[in-house]
Amino acid sequence: MVAVQHERSGKARILNSARELFTTHGFHQTSMAELALAAKVSVGQIYRLFKGKEEIIEALISADLHDRTAQMAALRLRLDTGQIDIEQTFEEAILQSLRDVDEALSFDILAEALRNQPVGETVSAMCQHLRRFLRDFACVANPDLSGEALDGAEEVILACLFGLGHRSLSLPNLSDERTAKRAAQMIVAALKAIR
Amino acid sequence: MVAVQHERSGKARILNSARELFTTHGFHQTSMAELALAAKVSVGQIYRLFKGKEEIIEALISADLHDRTAQMAALRLRLDTGQIDIEQTFEEAILQSLRDVDEALSFDILAEALRNQPVGETVSAMCQHLRRFLRDFACVANPDLSGEALDGAEEVILACLFGLGHRSLSLPNLSDERTAKRAAQMIVAALKAIR
Repeated sequence: MVAVQHERSGKARILNSARELFTTHGFHQTSMAELALAAKVSVGQIYRLFKGKEEIIEALISADLHDRTAQMAALRLRLDTGQIDIEQTFEEAILQSLRDVDEALSFDILAEALRNQPVGETVSAMCQHLRRFLRDFACVANPDLSGEALDGAEEVILACLFGLGHRSLSLPNLSDERTAKRAAQMIVAALKAIR
Repeated sequence: MVAVQHERSGKARILNSARELFTTHGFHQTSMAELALAAKVSVGQIYRLFKGKEEIIEALISADLHDRTAQMAALRLRLDTGQIDIEQTFEEAILQSLRDVDEALSFDILAEALRNQPVGETVSAMCQHLRRFLRDFACVANPDLSGEALDGAEEVILACLFGLGHRSLSLPNLSDERTAKRAAQMIVAALKAIR
């Protein structure tokens, strides 16, 4: 118990509480004093570890990037070793988008990223990682893809994943599982048809 | 000149200033006093016209819904009268998504919509309008589509439009025009291939 408490360092506690508070109340509506109270640290301790709320948001995005890259790399490995085919690869990538996104926090982060350059750069770096995986997957579905057709496919698949991961306000007709299955079918069909 | 000034009523001035300030500084970071100053009205006048910032956001979404529905209805008419084919219809719908979205304001509105039920309902109503058009377009591309295949197509196209309209942070490789063209090709190819 003592070891566990020790492990959950101040930094981890602050990030966990920040994720919770920012999600529930919003990034701008959460004060450093509220965060300190929730994380059971002093406001001074937060400022010793982070320059400000913006650096906390960047740390949250970096953690998400780490998780997402690991998920995509695991999918890539299963595809390369023949455990799943390309349609199942897209299906699982979409399911992860549908399930893992904390939409309210995500929208807050994105709004901040558009108004705050360092946060914007962190989000853009995350997208570049995702793009590389999606581009490779597109080439597996259709090895003849290149040039603008491949660039376009990358744009469309990325947009599709983003849109599906932020769809709750659109009152979806279809479950996450069926949506992922149908979307993967459509993506692979489209990739095979274009040149 | 007097007539023009008269036309731009207090309500319109407040909404114009709100759109500008919310976009630049954010919804929560804009105070009623700042809004009153920018719109050249008193804070009291704002509160006589709107219950609060939330009702202003709802009015902005309603205006967007009105514009978007008019655009989609115009596309539908051009499709029905043979002026454009279904691929061009999707291409133009995507171009409108790519061009018209004020992404920072949009993310603020969506974050608020997830935490504030009345705002959420207004956003959801907007999506329902869009869904109807997209579903009809999908059936034009492939008249045999029905059931889950059609529901899935609706989800995927809506997600794709949303994602493309909010892609600037992902540092796109392709211009708006080429992206719209490529995305429309992929959507129509996918719609024709599924059953």
